Amino acid sequence: MADRTGWAGRRVLVTGGAGFLGSALCHALGQAGAEVIALDAMLPGTGARRANLRGCGARLVVADLRDADLGSLCDRVDVLFNMAGQTSHAGSQKDPFGDLAINGHAQLRLIAALRQAAPGAVVVHASTRQFYGRPQRLPVDETHPIVPPDANGVSKFAAEQYWLLEHRVHGRPVTALRLTNCYGPRMRVMDARQTFLGIWIRRLLEGEAFEVWGGDQLRDFSYADDVVAAFLAAAESLLAGTGTAGRPFNLGGDAPMSLRHLAEALVTAGGSGRYVSREFPADRAAIDIGSYHADDGAFRAATGWAPRVGLRDGLRRTVDWFRPRLTEYLTEDETEGTTVR
Amino acid sequence: MADRTGWAGRRVLVTGGAGFLGSALCHALGQAGAEVIALDAMLPGTGARRANLRGCGARLVVADLRDADLGSLCDRVDVLFNMAGQTSHAGSQKDPFGDLAINGHAQLRLIAALRQAAPGAVVVHASTRQFYGRPQRLPVDETHPIVPPDANGVSKFAAEQYWLLEHRVHGRPVTALRLTNCYGPRMRVMDARQTFLGIWIRRLLEGEAFEVWGGDQLRDFSYADDVVAAFLAAAESLLAGTGTAGRPFNLGGDAPMSLRHLAEALVTAGGSGRYVSREFPADRAAIDIGSYHADDGAFRAATGWAPRVGLRDGLRRTVDWFRPRLTEYLTEDETEGTTVR
Repeated sequence: MADRTGWAGRRVLVTGGAGFLGSALCHALGQAGAEVIALDAMLPGTGARRANLRGCGARLVVADLRDADLGSLCDRVDVLFNMAGQTSHAGSQKDPFGDLAINGHAQLRLIAALRQAAPGAVVVHASTRQFYGRPQRLPVDETHPIVPPDANGVSKFAAEQYWLLEHRVHGRPVTALRLTNCYGPRMRVMDARQTFLGIWIRRLLEGEAFEVWGGDQLRDFSYADDVVAAFLAAAESLLAGTGTAGRPFNLGGDAPMSLRHLAEALVTAGGSGRYVSREFPADRAAIDIGSYHADDGAFRAATGWAPRVGLRDGLRRTVDWFRPRLTEYLTEDETEGTTVR
Repeated sequence: MADRTGWAGRRVLVTGGAGFLGSALCHALGQAGAEVIALDAMLPGTGARRANLRGCGARLVVADLRDADLGSLCDRVDVLFNMAGQTSHAGSQKDPFGDLAINGHAQLRLIAALRQAAPGAVVVHASTRQFYGRPQRLPVDETHPIVPPDANGVSKFAAEQYWLLEHRVHGRPVTALRLTNCYGPRMRVMDARQTFLGIWIRRLLEGEAFEVWGGDQLRDFSYADDVVAAFLAAAESLLAGTGTAGRPFNLGGDAPMSLRHLAEALVTAGGSGRYVSREFPADRAAIDIGSYHADDGAFRAATGWAPRVGLRDGLRRTVDWFRPRLTEYLTEDETEGTTVR
């Protein structure tokens, strides 16, 4: 990111800033000279950790979008990277109320605060491929029907559309990036809440077998650095007014791969390891989407972005990063405190 | 509806039961011998009125889906017609929080209660064409992209998808009917909150000019009796297991008509009257969808339903119905009281 210009002195708010992708963005923005506020509720079950922000220069504000006074945080913001959200699919089925409170009500609060405090700010919203549901065709482009397979797909589509309305109705420059499986340093590896790949990496580094459910499903994977580059490119495009405002874009990554091949690639990346194949548990089978890979040609064409880190390289980098840090990442972060610099 | 068989003795819950379409359903169900519970929060700004239920035999329960104990109301229900919702487009932009609370959170509460109390009940959910947004092609079928033009479109799509998930994940027989402009006896005519046609009818009967905004936009219109017949047909199809479960269907009506021609047809229906053409107010232009008409071929094919009341006939019937009752319909209903038989 060191070649990024134009960010020096910009005031940037990153919600979910202590999480996996939010913190990766904070590091890149800090290096580029931006003034970064990382807003995070530090909720258990998310990927939020104070350690994720170590050394990046961002100011962490511990606050929950559901009830915090957001006005002062939005004041004079130039760019909002909106990474906060409830992302657990199975969790949303167990507690759709909490899922909607975070992805619906809280987003409306942030929208209202930003409209008041920073009417000119540009927004890049972290959306998801989840609401396409089980793909009706592959690869999936942005015109694919919206058929959410779980409550999280419903609420995340609502969140994205609330933000895009800020463009359609109020003219604010907003883009949404629909993410697929993302991985890399600082991801949640404690369990499978963020992605199954997290628990795979944990088990691999613990020397235990990880479980592959099914195995034939194709998925694509975005390495954190590529995701960060995409968010920065999206914001730069909005700031430059190059026609991306109001559009949702898919983000993909390296070529799609079956979960079985992914498992083998992970074992190779780790140097050793093993996995076992299992049938899908019934409650997961009901909301599983089968094979997915993104057609992200629209975003590439609009911004020139392309992923640079291949899957095997990315897996190796991720495993190497976690190897000396695994223990630290196996417990929830402490949630006390309010504002930490 | 007198020829409807199979409804005698069925326990039917109609949410929004004191509203325009909800009460029309209650009358038809009462005639068909069903045991009908009309649940309504009797909120100002909706179409809810006690008078709408006069003589239909339904039991009115005044309760709000956002906080009522719904378990006993759902107990032993065979069929739920889910007509409750916040439907004002401009209102949703002014208060997206209230809009989401009613169309999101409250629907999740009803879903949870019904899952517990009546796992076998079939559900017909009143959805809307609103979330298609400005049509990208005409007529609009169910595969049209979802591009909500306002917060109400976002929340109503979420509501529909939460209900369809009950089929996708839990197997409950659920159908959603995406309504276009509906009109007929008992509609809200006090203002334009339910449809612009309401305020047109009011002004016509008051002997005043009504305002036509724009005029070239095409719209289609469903007469209340046809909408009621569609909801009954949808439920009967679910009860018979004829393959409609899990599907959303468009509902249309008579052939589409420009608003200018509609205005002229209304004047004819009223015997006299006049209108003035106006530019769209700016805040409405921002969320207006232009021309719309539905392709409802899928629902016709699936159920054999077809609209029977032409627009000119329906307008005449509506105006004639309201003429002796207008004064009663120009004030909000009183909202006191809890349970009324």
